[in-house]
Amino acid sequence: MHILVTNDDGIFNPGIIQLAKSMLKLGKVTVLAPDKNWSVSGHKKTLHKPLRVKKVELIEGIEAFSSDGAPSDCVALALLGLITEKIDLVVSGINPHANIGNDVTYSGTVTAAFEAAISGVPALAFSLDSPDNIDGDCDYSVAGAVATTIADNVIKFGLPVKTILSVNVPYLKIDEIRGFQITRQGLRLYRDALVVRDDPRGIPYYWIGGEFPHGIPEAGTDYGALKEGYVSITPLQLDMTAYSTFEYLSQWKW
Amino acid sequence: MHILVTNDDGIFNPGIIQLAKSMLKLGKVTVLAPDKNWSVSGHKKTLHKPLRVKKVELIEGIEAFSSDGAPSDCVALALLGLITEKIDLVVSGINPHANIGNDVTYSGTVTAAFEAAISGVPALAFSLDSPDNIDGDCDYSVAGAVATTIADNVIKFGLPVKTILSVNVPYLKIDEIRGFQITRQGLRLYRDALVVRDDPRGIPYYWIGGEFPHGIPEAGTDYGALKEGYVSITPLQLDMTAYSTFEYLSQWKW
Repeated sequence: MHILVTNDDGIFNPGIIQLAKSMLKLGKVTVLAPDKNWSVSGHKKTLHKPLRVKKVELIEGIEAFSSDGAPSDCVALALLGLITEKIDLVVSGINPHANIGNDVTYSGTVTAAFEAAISGVPALAFSLDSPDNIDGDCDYSVAGAVATTIADNVIKFGLPVKTILSVNVPYLKIDEIRGFQITRQGLRLYRDALVVRDDPRGIPYYWIGGEFPHGIPEAGTDYGALKEGYVSITPLQLDMTAYSTFEYLSQWKW
Repeated sequence: MHILVTNDDGIFNPGIIQLAKSMLKLGKVTVLAPDKNWSVSGHKKTLHKPLRVKKVELIEGIEAFSSDGAPSDCVALALLGLITEKIDLVVSGINPHANIGNDVTYSGTVTAAFEAAISGVPALAFSLDSPDNIDGDCDYSVAGAVATTIADNVIKFGLPVKTILSVNVPYLKIDEIRGFQITRQGLRLYRDALVVRDDPRGIPYYWIGGEFPHGIPEAGTDYGALKEGYVSITPLQLDMTAYSTFEYLSQWKW
C-alpha cells in the first residue's frame, strides 16, 4: 500500500505533517505538496510553464518533495511518473478549515483528490472544522486518527469509481465525537463584501472581503453533521450533469 | 435585461468580442473579463490580495472593464457591486476549445458560470470545438448565433436553480449544424505525459505535456453530440454529492 499525501496549504503546514504520520500506519507514504499556500485555488493544471520539484526533509521515514505547482499539479506530477512506484491511494489535507457546501468547487484540498480520481486512483480529502479565529496552529491529532480510520476502510472496501470522499472533522476531543455520518453537500452562506479603497497613488483597488462564511446546519448535510458532533463523510462525484433537468430542458424550443 | 459577459482567455480574445456582440441583441451588455489568459485555472477566489479594474475600449455601445483577477473573480467583483446595475444573466466564453467530460472541473469558462450560479444568477458557458491546430483565430460567428438563441431561451423560460448550461458548438457552418442536444458529461481521454529536462544550469524541470486530449463520441454525451454535428447543451449542477453511493458507504464499519 503506497499512499501519496498532498495539501493546498503548503508542505510545511502542520496539517499535512499530521496526515502523513497518520497514513504511515497503513503503508508506505510519499509526500508531494506545494511549496506555498494555494487555498481557494480551484482545479488547476499548469501546462504553459515548467514546474520545479525539490526534495524536502519533513518526517523521518517518509520521502517528501515540494513543487511550485498547485495541489492538482502535485498529484498530476506524481501520477505521470515523477514518483516511480505505483500509487494506490491519494490523500489531501488536513485543511485547517471545513470544506462544506459549494466550498468544494473552490477548495484546493478537494481538487487534489479530484485530480487523482480522474486518473482512476482512489482519493480522500480531509478538512478540520477549526474555530474561525484560532490562536496559533490547530490541533490536528483527532483529525489524524479519523483519517487513519477512514483510509483503512477505503483500503479494505474500495471506493466507487469516479467518486472521492470529502471528510470534515469537528474540532472536538476524540471522546466527544459522536460517530460518522454519510452526508450530502449542505448550504454554505458566503458573506463576501467588496472593499473599495484608494492606494497610496490615489488609484482605486478592490478587495473581496466580508465575514467568514457560515453554514446552515440542516440534518443530513456536511455542516449539519459537524454541528451535531459527527465526522461528515461526503461522497463527491466527477459527473456534474444535472440529470433531473433533462425533461424540463427538452421541452424548450431549440 | 442586463447581461454580464466574461471569459477565461482574456478580454481581447475574439471569442468574447463575438459573445458580447451576440448578447447585444438581447439586452444591455457589460463586459468584465481578465486582462490575461486564465485557461485551465479552475474555480478561484482571490482573497489574499486586492484586485485592479481598468476601463477598456472594446466595442461601441458596451461598457467594458478588465481585471487582474481570475474569471470567477471577475464575476464575484461584478455581483458584489462593482457593476452597480443589477445583472440578470452571466455568459462566459466563447472558449476556443470544447469543454467536455472532466474538462468542466478545470475550465475557467465554466467556473465563471458556477460563480454566478452560487450567487443565484443564471449563467451559461460557451465553448467552440475548433480543430486542434487551427491557423490563426477561430471563426466565432456560428457559435455567436447559437449563443444568442440559447440565451434567448434562458431569458424566456428561466434556468433551474443551482444549474448552469455548458454549451459546446461544433466547428461547422450554420447550415451544417443538425440541431441541439441535451447531453451528459462524456468521457475525456487525457493524454498528458511528463517531460523532464535539464535547464541551462543543469537543474531538472518538469513540464506536463503530451497530446491534446481526445473524447469518446458516445451517444447522449457532450462529445457524442459534437461529433454528430449537434450543439451540445450540458446542464451542470453545483451539488456534486454522489447520492448513489450512500447505501454502499453506509454498510462500512465506521
